[in-house]
Amino acid sequence: MTTTMHDGLDLDQIPELAAQLRVDSVRSSSSAGSGHPTSSMSAADLLATLMARHLRYDWDAPEAPGNDHLVFSKGHASPLLYSVYKAAGVVSDQELMEGYRRFDQRLEGHPTPVLPWVDVATGSLGQGLPDGVGIALAGKYLEQAPYRVWVLTGDSELAEGSMWEALGTASYYELTNLVTIVDVNRLGQRGETALGWDLDTYAARVEAFGARAVIIDGHDIGQIDEALAQADGELDRPLVILARTLKGKGYSAIEDELNWHGKPMPDDKAEEAIAELGGERNLVVRGPKPPVIDRPEPSRGSAELPTFEKGEEVATRKAYGPALAALGAADPRIVALDGEVSNSTGVADFIEAHPDRFFEMFIAEQQMVAAATGMSARGYLAFASSFAAFLTRAADFIRMAPVSRADLRLVGSHAGVEIGADGPSQMGLEDLAMLAAVQGSTVLYPSDGTSTAALVEQMTKTSGVSYLRTTRGAYPVLYGADEQFPVGGSKTLRSSEDDAVTLIGAGVTLHEALTAADSLAEQGIKARVIDAYSIKPIDAEGIREAVAATGGRVVVAEDHHVEGGLGAAVLSALASEPINDLHVKHLAVDGVPGSGTTAELLGWAGIDAAHIAEAARSALEG
Amino acid sequence: MTTTMHDGLDLDQIPELAAQLRVDSVRSSSSAGSGHPTSSMSAADLLATLMARHLRYDWDAPEAPGNDHLVFSKGHASPLLYSVYKAAGVVSDQELMEGYRRFDQRLEGHPTPVLPWVDVATGSLGQGLPDGVGIALAGKYLEQAPYRVWVLTGDSELAEGSMWEALGTASYYELTNLVTIVDVNRLGQRGETALGWDLDTYAARVEAFGARAVIIDGHDIGQIDEALAQADGELDRPLVILARTLKGKGYSAIEDELNWHGKPMPDDKAEEAIAELGGERNLVVRGPKPPVIDRPEPSRGSAELPTFEKGEEVATRKAYGPALAALGAADPRIVALDGEVSNSTGVADFIEAHPDRFFEMFIAEQQMVAAATGMSARGYLAFASSFAAFLTRAADFIRMAPVSRADLRLVGSHAGVEIGADGPSQMGLEDLAMLAAVQGSTVLYPSDGTSTAALVEQMTKTSGVSYLRTTRGAYPVLYGADEQFPVGGSKTLRSSEDDAVTLIGAGVTLHEALTAADSLAEQGIKARVIDAYSIKPIDAEGIREAVAATGGRVVVAEDHHVEGGLGAAVLSALASEPINDLHVKHLAVDGVPGSGTTAELLGWAGIDAAHIAEAARSALEG
Repeated sequence: MTTTMHDGLDLDQIPELAAQLRVDSVRSSSSAGSGHPTSSMSAADLLATLMARHLRYDWDAPEAPGNDHLVFSKGHASPLLYSVYKAAGVVSDQELMEGYRRFDQRLEGHPTPVLPWVDVATGSLGQGLPDGVGIALAGKYLEQAPYRVWVLTGDSELAEGSMWEALGTASYYELTNLVTIVDVNRLGQRGETALGWDLDTYAARVEAFGARAVIIDGHDIGQIDEALAQADGELDRPLVILARTLKGKGYSAIEDELNWHGKPMPDDKAEEAIAELGGERNLVVRGPKPPVIDRPEPSRGSAELPTFEKGEEVATRKAYGPALAALGAADPRIVALDGEVSNSTGVADFIEAHPDRFFEMFIAEQQMVAAATGMSARGYLAFASSFAAFLTRAADFIRMAPVSRADLRLVGSHAGVEIGADGPSQMGLEDLAMLAAVQGSTVLYPSDGTSTAALVEQMTKTSGVSYLRTTRGAYPVLYGADEQFPVGGSKTLRSSEDDAVTLIGAGVTLHEALTAADSLAEQGIKARVIDAYSIKPIDAEGIREAVAATGGRVVVAEDHHVEGGLGAAVLSALASEPINDLHVKHLAVDGVPGSGTTAELLGWAGIDAAHIAEAARSALEG
Repeated sequence: MTTTMHDGLDLDQIPELAAQLRVDSVRSSSSAGSGHPTSSMSAADLLATLMARHLRYDWDAPEAPGNDHLVFSKGHASPLLYSVYKAAGVVSDQELMEGYRRFDQRLEGHPTPVLPWVDVATGSLGQGLPDGVGIALAGKYLEQAPYRVWVLTGDSELAEGSMWEALGTASYYELTNLVTIVDVNRLGQRGETALGWDLDTYAARVEAFGARAVIIDGHDIGQIDEALAQADGELDRPLVILARTLKGKGYSAIEDELNWHGKPMPDDKAEEAIAELGGERNLVVRGPKPPVIDRPEPSRGSAELPTFEKGEEVATRKAYGPALAALGAADPRIVALDGEVSNSTGVADFIEAHPDRFFEMFIAEQQMVAAATGMSARGYLAFASSFAAFLTRAADFIRMAPVSRADLRLVGSHAGVEIGADGPSQMGLEDLAMLAAVQGSTVLYPSDGTSTAALVEQMTKTSGVSYLRTTRGAYPVLYGADEQFPVGGSKTLRSSEDDAVTLIGAGVTLHEALTAADSLAEQGIKARVIDAYSIKPIDAEGIREAVAATGGRVVVAEDHHVEGGLGAAVLSALASEPINDLHVKHLAVDGVPGSGTTAELLGWAGIDAAHIAEAARSALEG
């Protein structure tokens, strides 16, 4: 029997709903044979009160711009979230019981935006709150919408530094539209957390980071309701509700017991738990409605990209900012974030042109990428920039972006040994490998100002994770303003009928390859030179054709470690069809660099013009 | 003229030393044409007082076990650090002026352990303090040595979550041997920090994270000395000294001015600054001596690795713990760390056997890897484990390990879609690419219990970053206990004279390849099967020989994304010499997985036995 209750519940009706959420958490995980019922049960009272009385959400219109947002940072409590969906009437009991954690079903082990009510994927702890900060930033500063962002976190995940990046950012940006509910059930996976039930210490940390902390008994409906109601008024700071709870609450045999993390109950225990909780229910509850607001489609024009004179020396990192500023003028959805290095990454030009669409994330790259993810969930085209080396700080967040179905646009400057004197800590030498391995990603590496501007524009049209790698130093512009740079393409800069070898470069090594071709020409060796500006997808056909046309001889040079970069992409292209007599010379950075000039370090790494020419000659010999 | 002052300085002599450090910071960076003089000048009074009166250090014996440790978390202040070395008499003025930031010199742009007084490389902000926590953990719990760890940090880097992971860990482990000195000069690279000079807020955060905060004027020698002296007594908590300073202090024209970050002074300004600071000096100052303590070489035996019966079903993650426990019994230098998933990663067996050599790092993977780095600097063999997916959280720390010349031993469990129902957030599908791209790394991926135990032993003998990838499910043991698994090797599990195709797998895909070979054999197709347990270095010769012997036909299957994993390693091996008629079929995970059973997901990804057999047949067709 289904009872539908609209417009929320009275306080004394909440325990029934909470019991249903607990029963359904037990049932769904037991039916799936895996999952986290106990981590769901601890937060059931919190979620019952929230969904019935405070979450302003039109369950029939998940895209409604006035809807609040609910982020399960503790994504392993998916049985609870999906039980909430059942209680909202948008997921059937059958789906919950037969779909949860099953193949080709949408109720995955951890929530993802395959579900229309989910904004961002969670399951890597410490990401949901930073993602929620991104949604709240969009709500407050971009949409200027009245929605609130509610984030449920575990206590274990407060050990992740990213959570404190999030709270620091939330208070800096005065995100009074962000409510964090911490389910302090004391127990992690293998034992007690570092702080156990020391809620005072959590509160002190939260307050010191600029949020308002409220400590409650997470099973006292009155206290929960009062705390949540604070968000219905005017907040002066982000709100963090610290709820003391019992893991497994509602089934006395395992309440607050160790060794029940991430385990479904066996049938006998599940039956016992359900009985203790009063059996199955099928309440359908709709809480408060969101305000009806309009979100007009932004008007977009066409951008006038900056142009550069052929031969003019321009650093690609310096071309990025003007290009993004121009694109931003034409499309109000474009926003930028940076990790406190905007004068290095080149995004300063965008800041000057569109200060209201720039977010300084200070030196918190994880939060920067999470904010971009949250903004992507709200339909913005967020470009996040830092040194290529420091984007590795956010690797786990970048990895999760495709699971979140987020469009993430990343720009990494100061790539490679090319940067010179600063030394290896500042040299991005692993960034291509990291970004290429991300599901569905696009990896671009321009060599001049013209292609940089064109590829930034391409990124605005590219879904998924896209990455632009830029270079510190200034090099001659190679292309006229009308040149097109499609993703997946390449450019042939030198070619003749009787080329003996193909030289492939990107970024600084393309310029070295051109110099190498000149010196080879002086020795009577004609070389074809390819600008592989699109590393993923690589222009497999173009590269295969060039290499086949030059007798199978190819030199690929890159300012990156040996693995996972341009060379790997070229090998993959060449392997897709047999090429006989293939002679590949792969020049890349092997060894730990030190300081030096660009020329010294390119030489040390064996990726400068002299080494490219030498490798070409060696390929010809054998 | 050089004046040598032993046994420290009186307080009234400190300003002279501080002036020298400032002058030398200006001189060295101006001579190099790059560097961070102003970020050095803000901390000069702090370092002068520390080195002359509190740092217990035998400059003539950097390896002395009683020495304190000095970590420059703000590594860009290298001019200051190197000026300290000059003031200690271990670096000449000539080296400072002619070596700083120059090619093939040891005074790199950011400090690295190429210098004997440097424990860990810094320059990626937010890493020095977590690394220092590792050294302090070693000092307190492993060496039981009286040394203190002094960490100089910037204020900007307090935006990194890793700093709060570090302080939380320091207070949890009661690291009263750790002193953090924060140079709060208010200015980041492109402007003011989020908190500026709000030292009270910093203090509240530090105190809430369990450390003792002391606010001082960072240019008042008396206040500095008093604060540092607290560490000479008995501390009840880690100490954090918050020093209010002026960037560029000592040269009035640029003190506290924006736009002087990371810029050497031009000659005229440098001259003016040096004049205002009273000119060049050549003081040599030796502070307090460290206690003379003994650090005996640990006695090591030979380990009896666990053995497994062929055919027995064992999860490689479950073989890891017993192997490490056995190795730990033979070698007291072996320690383990885990990110709150020890019952999943398998390290629980080690914890049971050697509880005093295990460090629970909770869900703070960055701190976990940093702690292992710090312990490596103290000569320990630290194994750090988590889910493969979550090691990506520490990518920037792993990237820095080779720059730190650290031996880092990482173990990532639950790799790939094989894990099943938990879904993509928990699936390591990028870990091989991330680890392989690390300079000098070793990447191992065993398929059974025997090879797991053997490879864990290999890791104890492997320098640099090494990585063991383990699998969730249990699979049949393939090898007898006497089998050897050298790094860089491979195993041929099926072969005959007339093999038509080579199948290469590792981990779960090796078992699928064996099944595929069986089904191909039923169809009259003989397949060679190779266990590529060493992904980096790959057994290039063995693989080339096998592929050449099977007509250039090869199928490689991996439970990882397409880029940067086993397939990329195989292509690289095959490209090193021409193989004609090469037909490579590369099966890998492309697309975002959902939940499901292992079999369903291996099938969905196209990496199960059926797909491998199909790819082999397709390779035979041409």
